[in-house]
Amino acid sequence: MTLQQKFNRLRSNKIFELFVISIIIFSALVIGAKTYHMSETVLNAIAVLDWAITFIFLTEIIIRFIGEEHKSQFFKNVWNIFDSLIVTVSLIPIEDSELAIIGRLIRIFRVLRMISIIPELRMLLNSLIIALPQLAYIVALMFIIFYIYAAVGSTFFAEINPVLWGDIAISMLTLFRVMTFEDWTDVMYETMSVYPLSWIFYMSFIFFTAFAFLNMVIGVVVNVLNEEHERVVQKNKAPEPSNTELQEEIRELKALIKKSIKT
Amino acid sequence: MTLQQKFNRLRSNKIFELFVISIIIFSALVIGAKTYHMSETVLNAIAVLDWAITFIFLTEIIIRFIGEEHKSQFFKNVWNIFDSLIVTVSLIPIEDSELAIIGRLIRIFRVLRMISIIPELRMLLNSLIIALPQLAYIVALMFIIFYIYAAVGSTFFAEINPVLWGDIAISMLTLFRVMTFEDWTDVMYETMSVYPLSWIFYMSFIFFTAFAFLNMVIGVVVNVLNEEHERVVQKNKAPEPSNTELQEEIRELKALIKKSIKT
Amino acid sequence: MTLQQKFNRLRSNKIFELFVISIIIFSALVIGAKTYHMSETVLNAIAVLDWAITFIFLTEIIIRFIGEEHKSQFFKNVWNIFDSLIVTVSLIPIEDSELAIIGRLIRIFRVLRMISIIPELRMLLNSLIIALPQLAYIVALMFIIFYIYAAVGSTFFAEINPVLWGDIAISMLTLFRVMTFEDWTDVMYETMSVYPLSWIFYMSFIFFTAFAFLNMVIGVVVNVLNEEHERVVQKNKAPEPSNTELQEEIRELKALIKKSIKT
Amino acid sequence: MTLQQKFNRLRSNKIFELFVISIIIFSALVIGAKTYHMSETVLNAIAVLDWAITFIFLTEIIIRFIGEEHKSQFFKNVWNIFDSLIVTVSLIPIEDSELAIIGRLIRIFRVLRMISIIPELRMLLNSLIIALPQLAYIVALMFIIFYIYAAVGSTFFAEINPVLWGDIAISMLTLFRVMTFEDWTDVMYETMSVYPLSWIFYMSFIFFTAFAFLNMVIGVVVNVLNEEHERVVQKNKAPEPSNTELQEEIRELKALIKKSIKT
Repeated sequence: MTLQQKFNRLRSNKIFELFVISIIIFSALVIGAKTYHMSETVLNAIAVLDWAITFIFLTEIIIRFIGEEHKSQFFKNVWNIFDSLIVTVSLIPIEDSELAIIGRLIRIFRVLRMISIIPELRMLLNSLIIALPQLAYIVALMFIIFYIYAAVGSTFFAEINPVLWGDIAISMLTLFRVMTFEDWTDVMYETMSVYPLSWIFYMSFIFFTAFAFLNMVIGVVVNVLNEEHERVVQKNKAPEPSNTELQEEIRELKALIKKSIKT
Repeated sequence: MTLQQKFNRLRSNKIFELFVISIIIFSALVIGAKTYHMSETVLNAIAVLDWAITFIFLTEIIIRFIGEEHKSQFFKNVWNIFDSLIVTVSLIPIEDSELAIIGRLIRIFRVLRMISIIPELRMLLNSLIIALPQLAYIVALMFIIFYIYAAVGSTFFAEINPVLWGDIAISMLTLFRVMTFEDWTDVMYETMSVYPLSWIFYMSFIFFTAFAFLNMVIGVVVNVLNEEHERVVQKNKAPEPSNTELQEEIRELKALIKKSIKT
Repeated sequence: MTLQQKFNRLRSNKIFELFVISIIIFSALVIGAKTYHMSETVLNAIAVLDWAITFIFLTEIIIRFIGEEHKSQFFKNVWNIFDSLIVTVSLIPIEDSELAIIGRLIRIFRVLRMISIIPELRMLLNSLIIALPQLAYIVALMFIIFYIYAAVGSTFFAEINPVLWGDIAISMLTLFRVMTFEDWTDVMYETMSVYPLSWIFYMSFIFFTAFAFLNMVIGVVVNVLNEEHERVVQKNKAPEPSNTELQEEIRELKALIKKSIKT
Repeated sequence: MTLQQKFNRLRSNKIFELFVISIIIFSALVIGAKTYHMSETVLNAIAVLDWAITFIFLTEIIIRFIGEEHKSQFFKNVWNIFDSLIVTVSLIPIEDSELAIIGRLIRIFRVLRMISIIPELRMLLNSLIIALPQLAYIVALMFIIFYIYAAVGSTFFAEINPVLWGDIAISMLTLFRVMTFEDWTDVMYETMSVYPLSWIFYMSFIFFTAFAFLNMVIGVVVNVLNEEHERVVQKNKAPEPSNTELQEEIRELKALIKKSIKT
């Protein structure tokens, strides 16, 4: 058995997988622990653990790479690229305080390896990503609604409260706040003291976004139900003849019998 | 080839369409840019750009109008009317500070041309508009609920807090706020200090509106699912015989065979 | 034609119905107008209008009662009872300031006559009422959740903030507030300063109620979809034979043919 | 008739069941009453009632246990274990102030016996528990999202506001607050004053969690609808032949007729 075969068998090994998952969980706990105030000794221990985790991850990636039969296929998998990137960047020793932040972020993103290693989570994320393009037009419509209302808002309300309506970007943030109903009446009462009819602005905005959002949700539900239905139909399709085919067969029968009568 | 045919071909040209879309996006960016504080030079440049955009839009409408085979059909399309209106009003030079606001609004509404030019967005909006009448009775029921609660509210609570319950219009706005759960307990605790049982007023209102709203959502979902189902059935209808027709054919067969036996 | 037949024809008259609807709308407007501050003259005019409306309603009820063929059936209709009650109570002259409030409430409830007169709204309300019993057990479950959490809350938190957790009734109101996410963190942070683990109380409560609520919504959706499906199936049932019946017919054919071969 | 048979009949007796339910409701009312301030006499009366309730519950459990045909089956039922536990712990006399709290909690949990005694509520809770494992992966995904955002949040924002972002546990609580839209803009504006781009953090978090949550809801709806559909199909399955079987029968017919022609 070659090294490749050995490593291929190793990486599909259940215990090896569980070991990697537990290392990821452990690395997540280390990240969590770092957010608490701790003595110098513990911090040093964590730094050592950190390097140990990076080393284990490196080893695991190398095993998976060597275990791969078709080396060129390895980097066609988005998750393999993601894993390699995370590990490679972890290896770069960063001391500079500016870049140290990036180092910490990379260590946090290692938790995402959980998704790359558990197939069910990977599938779940895929299904989320697949659903996105179908929603593209609704998102576009919503963006247009936001943009127009933000333009109107910053045109009229900028002088009333520049913190909320200063420019179009800030106005869009304020509108998102209104959409989540977070203290939206405070925003409204403020502008109503200058423009008493500005409640129309807020009410119509809430109506349009709520309706577009509702449509989005319904669109997703209908899509999911249709896909489910399609899958069920697909599964049963091959062997089940349609009524049309049955009719065809009965007609052939009739022809046969008519012929038999004539003879 | 006549001018009309040339223009007709031009307006269905993919590049021409992309050009118009990019001009609309550019005009949206100009609108957004205006909300930021800028030097005199940039403002002048924007004013020039504004007129250029209006001119391009005018040209585009004229091309589409000349390209139209049946001139009388042109203004039967709501979107054509909308586009023409936006462009015509943009052409009127407004200097008066009062009307200048309207000029700015018109420029903002030009972003809506995005919907008139992209068929998918137009269809989306149409489907929203089609769904509205089906909801008319629920909206009417909700309005009655709001009106009665607002009348009761302004009768009892007007003296407690005239800002929130002063008259029936303000009370309806306050009730909408309660419906969005925005600081609704502050509103309630205030009236409960005078009428300790007024929580019944708020709880029943929340219950009724939530229930009516839920019904509305369900109504829309059921409608959409039914339409989908209808469409699928419609698509398959023509060629597929029903079981009844199959039965009919089998019975004809029986008659034939019985006849053949007798002979 | 007897008086009864005349009145029966009158009450199903479209114009008569529209007239009554417009009187109801007008009475709603009068109610709304009353919530604004007005001069003595206008108030007097409104008082006169009020009596006119009451008189028209009385006339209408009498017409509908005389028009009814089976007098005993009249009061079996909940809406007729409701209408009669509203009108009768409106007739009692109330001057006492205590009872005057009831008089005003009765006038407000006249707006509900809108529902009793428009069949679509009546049907809508009926469907809401029909859906209620199906939800009874979920509502019971939710009440139990609320009751237990309120009991625990008022046991532990009553001394921290008696306004929010003083007794079991106030605690349930506070929990409803937490369920609507209205400043729930303020409530939580207050108790967390005494019991640092009390976030478990809030999180588990939110989880249970959200889950029960979700279940309720799904239950309603599934019910509505099933009813729709049932109705479609019911409509098509009579003429369409099942596959089982077709099989039966084919088997009869086989028997016939076998017999014909033997002969 | 043996004692066991007598007790078995007793425990399925409708009146006995109603009696137990009313005792549970009464015990719930006693719990509620305790949260109000009362005179010494009433408190003593309640203490006596409490013991009476415990005694009745004990008697009921004993009756149900004796009435059970297969004694070993009795404790295989989770609800029987729950009931026995509640009653046994209620029997222990606790005077110590520390443990008295546990005694009060146990008395509150007696209200849960409502669920153990009413079959519909038991079924409802079972269906909730059955739905949970299907959601496990979405919950896991959501936990990962929360954990990563909490790690990032406490890394960057801990110095801005240690109360909200001090460590990873507090950060997760703050993120849950953001997810419920409870004063989330206050949290955001605070960090935006230091990191102006931190709105990306909040917006992306809201987007991811809302999307994951939406997926969860849809997953549950699809599951419930599929189960309903499955149940309907299961019910009709046995007697209804498929089109394939019909085709098979028609082909056998054809073979028969062809044979009859040849002869």
